[in-house]
Amino acid sequence: MEDLTMCPKFETAFQLLGKRWNGLIIRVLLHGPSRFRDISSHIPNMSDKMLVDRLKQLEINGIIERKVYPETPVRIEYQLTSKGRALEPALDEIQSWAENWVENETPEPVENQ
Amino acid sequence: MEDLTMCPKFETAFQLLGKRWNGLIIRVLLHGPSRFRDISSHIPNMSDKMLVDRLKQLEINGIIERKVYPETPVRIEYQLTSKGRALEPALDEIQSWAENWVENETPEPVENQ
Repeated sequence: MEDLTMCPKFETAFQLLGKRWNGLIIRVLLHGPSRFRDISSHIPNMSDKMLVDRLKQLEINGIIERKVYPETPVRIEYQLTSKGRALEPALDEIQSWAENWVENETPEPVENQ
Repeated sequence: MEDLTMCPKFETAFQLLGKRWNGLIIRVLLHGPSRFRDISSHIPNMSDKMLVDRLKQLEINGIIERKVYPETPVRIEYQLTSKGRALEPALDEIQSWAENWVENETPEPVENQ
């Protein structure tokens, strides 16, 4: 049986990615650096307040970085870090599993811990 | 840009797997059908009450099934369904990402939604 002590890291990863919108934001940024408005336009059901919150959390966790270009007007872009880009294969596998196996009906609710 | 309407399934998957202990329970069951005590012994920090709860949730979500063998005494085993076994590549990718990129220090808390 493998060493199960890796579990806290593993669960940290899933908790971060399982939080609503985070997976989608990362998928948008896999296409390249984007401004706030661009990300927002790809995820129409998410409020701006929520996007601000999620971008901050992803930045704190080292998944994305915020680049400020001192132009007039100032340009701000969000982009994945190496850590964030490294998520692509995992996101692809989960996406593929979900497409094959998760039903279209309303899923069983997974309550918060 | 890909179709982002798949997101609810994707997030359902991550929420289920991000819930504490679920990933570990699935990893234990990837080694084969197990009795309650066997699963419990591999995850010493998890209470029996918690394991009962998680097994029920994973069963409702079609990830595992509970087999009752009418022996004396009755034998009950838990095993992954096809849907559950199909998670292995995704779990491996996340595990590998987490080992490479998640710090050992206490991570930034990811509050519940």
